[in-house]
Amino acid sequence: MAAAAPPPPPTPAPSAPTGLPDSDSTPVGHPLFTRIRLATPLDIPHIHKLIHQMAIFEKLTHLFTATESSLASTLFKSPPFQSFTIFLLEVSAHPFEKDSNFHSQSFTPIERIFNLDHTLIDPEAETFKSGINSDVVVAGFVLFFPNFSTFLGKPGFYVEDLFVRECYRRKGLGKLLLSAVASQAVKMEYGRVEWVVLDWNVNAIKFYEEMGANVLPEWRICRLTGPALEAYRDAI
Amino acid sequence: MAAAAPPPPPTPAPSAPTGLPDSDSTPVGHPLFTRIRLATPLDIPHIHKLIHQMAIFEKLTHLFTATESSLASTLFKSPPFQSFTIFLLEVSAHPFEKDSNFHSQSFTPIERIFNLDHTLIDPEAETFKSGINSDVVVAGFVLFFPNFSTFLGKPGFYVEDLFVRECYRRKGLGKLLLSAVASQAVKMEYGRVEWVVLDWNVNAIKFYEEMGANVLPEWRICRLTGPALEAYRDAI
Repeated sequence: MAAAAPPPPPTPAPSAPTGLPDSDSTPVGHPLFTRIRLATPLDIPHIHKLIHQMAIFEKLTHLFTATESSLASTLFKSPPFQSFTIFLLEVSAHPFEKDSNFHSQSFTPIERIFNLDHTLIDPEAETFKSGINSDVVVAGFVLFFPNFSTFLGKPGFYVEDLFVRECYRRKGLGKLLLSAVASQAVKMEYGRVEWVVLDWNVNAIKFYEEMGANVLPEWRICRLTGPALEAYRDAI
Repeated sequence: MAAAAPPPPPTPAPSAPTGLPDSDSTPVGHPLFTRIRLATPLDIPHIHKLIHQMAIFEKLTHLFTATESSLASTLFKSPPFQSFTIFLLEVSAHPFEKDSNFHSQSFTPIERIFNLDHTLIDPEAETFKSGINSDVVVAGFVLFFPNFSTFLGKPGFYVEDLFVRECYRRKGLGKLLLSAVASQAVKMEYGRVEWVVLDWNVNAIKFYEEMGANVLPEWRICRLTGPALEAYRDAI
């Protein structure tokens, strides 16, 4: 697809994230522990399933031809942020164990606790289980990569896809994922974060504008693909 | 900027490119020898001037903050086609000398001869002179980089900028530059080439459609930049 999936509508999250716990703040109610980390090749089966769910959500399964194999051969070929990069969103009913595998020089996982009004039922918890001996499940992802503004003379990030599984929507997790990309862009002194939205998706547009984005009314995407692209094989 | 500059309007080129000369086809009339090659760091002064001309053309000089230094610190950091890549368009009244510096494993320069009705006067020939002892001048460029389609499960190219200097427009050179990117995409088995166009630029839209592109009517670009982006510095 060519666009970020519509985010959760801009209804207020039931409760704001409380940040990392410290000795004085034990989460109450129904805490949802969330973590954003860099995806690895081991996550490809989950990523493939998430993309497929996104295609179903957008009624675009006829355009879905990605396979685990095609993802494996094109993703994770460059250091994080230099090319196609995926932040994975994981959730758990319990605090995350420290996993040094997910800490790198380029990115330290982000953890937030959301205090919910009730316990979430995830009907696909088994399918999206992350790791063997834990209750951690994969709840969403964002795929982005550097783009370039010649006017600014510097790079930015383009967000290709943002997706949160259905039972985790409307809680602020989509905003957390997009904020993570924006924060990373600022850290790297990049000039912009861009993505696209469908013009009729007024909820998404309102949500993005509330996050500080401008929607550019005049630009249209041009796409050369399929046989029309193939025609250029011997054109040069 | 976020978009390919409008190309030459889709008026028919005065004469089609004739391809590389061979022993039986000496160009007649007023030949314009053209070459598309990978840009190098040595081309940054010319690239910077071209971007500035593009900003003037688009009446967007207030957005133009790129410097030679900012370009030098962000471009040419990765092998060609892996990240931000520039094809430079050079022209000459004489055949190009073989320059092995411009031949690489990743790209062989493309040469075409355009037979024009009259000799071109380039008022900026001295400014855009390419090399010391030649009449070769830089006439335009295209900047592009990989993007990614999760639905296809493979990369494509996004064309950020396409620009041809004024005196070289309406001859098919913009089409040649864009075709070079499309051809490269096919060679690399990429799935798409994309760029954006202003919705009121009907000439450009017609031109792109004639090249086989579809204009997607529903997608809008969202952009987070400036202070609104900076606000995410400590948000995570």
